[in-house]
Amino acid sequence: MFKKITIIGVGLIGGSLARALKRHSLCEWITGCGRNEATLQKAVELGVIDHYSLDIREAVAGADVVVLATPLATTESLLREMLDGLKPGCIITDVGSAKVSVMAAARAALGDRFRYFVPAHPVAGTEKSGVEASFAELFEKHVVIITPVPETDVASNKIITDMWQGVGATTVELPADHHDEVLAATSHLPHMLVYTLVDCLARMQDREEIFAYAAGGFADFTRIASSNPEMWRDICLANREPLLAVMDNFEQRLQDLKQAIAASEGDQILEIFSRAKQARDRFTRTDPENHSDVSDEN
Amino acid sequence: MFKKITIIGVGLIGGSLARALKRHSLCEWITGCGRNEATLQKAVELGVIDHYSLDIREAVAGADVVVLATPLATTESLLREMLDGLKPGCIITDVGSAKVSVMAAARAALGDRFRYFVPAHPVAGTEKSGVEASFAELFEKHVVIITPVPETDVASNKIITDMWQGVGATTVELPADHHDEVLAATSHLPHMLVYTLVDCLARMQDREEIFAYAAGGFADFTRIASSNPEMWRDICLANREPLLAVMDNFEQRLQDLKQAIAASEGDQILEIFSRAKQARDRFTRTDPENHSDVSDEN
Repeated sequence: MFKKITIIGVGLIGGSLARALKRHSLCEWITGCGRNEATLQKAVELGVIDHYSLDIREAVAGADVVVLATPLATTESLLREMLDGLKPGCIITDVGSAKVSVMAAARAALGDRFRYFVPAHPVAGTEKSGVEASFAELFEKHVVIITPVPETDVASNKIITDMWQGVGATTVELPADHHDEVLAATSHLPHMLVYTLVDCLARMQDREEIFAYAAGGFADFTRIASSNPEMWRDICLANREPLLAVMDNFEQRLQDLKQAIAASEGDQILEIFSRAKQARDRFTRTDPENHSDVSDEN
Repeated sequence: MFKKITIIGVGLIGGSLARALKRHSLCEWITGCGRNEATLQKAVELGVIDHYSLDIREAVAGADVVVLATPLATTESLLREMLDGLKPGCIITDVGSAKVSVMAAARAALGDRFRYFVPAHPVAGTEKSGVEASFAELFEKHVVIITPVPETDVASNKIITDMWQGVGATTVELPADHHDEVLAATSHLPHMLVYTLVDCLARMQDREEIFAYAAGGFADFTRIASSNPEMWRDICLANREPLLAVMDNFEQRLQDLKQAIAASEGDQILEIFSRAKQARDRFTRTDPENHSDVSDEN
């Protein structure tokens, strides 16, 4: 059991982790830290955290573990700010959706302490934001991808792995660059497509009718467009190269389909759709958990 | 109450309409017709239809209403085949997802009887196919778009409108070309994006990991890729021009986003995502029914 964990950024992910740690009696004392005092007060009122501080050095003092659950662009500056407040051997971990850039930021900011930095990404979330949307079950049966490097302290890695397993998640280790490529494909690209689609439709002349006659499938399909825009801007910038690569790949395939439609090539269209259906049916068969209707990856 | 309705194509939509007509005691006798005798036998066993015939002329004999619920490409030939079997004044209607092409086919095939053709599109469905997936509640609180022309018989139009309202749907009239543009945007384009995305990922080298680490949001997002490939091939071909136009529009917007990401234009990215979030949040606020998790448009 941890004596004290400090969570920087008590939003959907940070707040849900705090709730889950309490639910599973994994931590005696949880301190929150953030820019917005009203949010932190709310988090204390909701019983999500025990205490908060707006001063990051004060917040991390004495903590066994510091969890960074803030937008990706803030990583390096927050790590630099907290550095002097950390106790010796304090483990630092994060929940960012792009790992190569986070690790570069951590390496630059933490110096000698970089070996106590355990990069992690809980592949879980909803399209909602903020501590009010947090819930203790968010990580249950979801995957947390951990991307250590050879210099990462083995004991620290084990402690963070155990923490995530303790709140119901499955953990897996991947190289950071591979993580970034996989997530660009399965999570970042779908968000780009849905944000673009909804923006595209909202700018069409008959947008009122378009939204009026959209059926339930459209609401499911576009749900991820309600996700936090700032968070997703940061993900785009932090995972730029893998994301652009997979966007190029997608664009090429979409052009192939468009050409097949323009040429009325029924057989080619059928081949694309059939291959996709087969892959999708196979995917849902192998993992019934993926039928969940509450969780988005990010 | 109808004495006899004949449903050509007893699949998800045709079967659900048959079930709903029975549930609401709107029809005494329902005859099914199709190519596959095993399916029709199954439909009789399930109590979905009362009777079937493989001979379309025999099937439509004496019917008050004939409902065409088959893939779009079959419309003209089936209408020609049934023509001699129809009783005078028999109303013919359909459930096709593209209306301009269906109406051209009906006009060509039906001659004088074209005025009794009431083109309709229930904007409801699931990603499943076949009579086993049919259910009586499918159309409840869903929109049925009817696209009559000036020559459409007013009494026939009223009867079909009442039929759909009788099974719980809301009806609305739109010009066929406008229907096709709206559906291309809200339904056909999303299916193209998801089929293309899943096919794209399934062809990547690390596809096993890609599908393994996809979270719940991915399952929601890609659910429509499990839809019937033949049906969607026909929709693409039948609604080619409006679909290509909206695909072009989407492609342009996706390229704008890609350029913004490549240039690390954070403000521009944020603007796109914020506009999309606002439109999507507004859309779901105005129509809580759109939260349904069972229905896809098609």
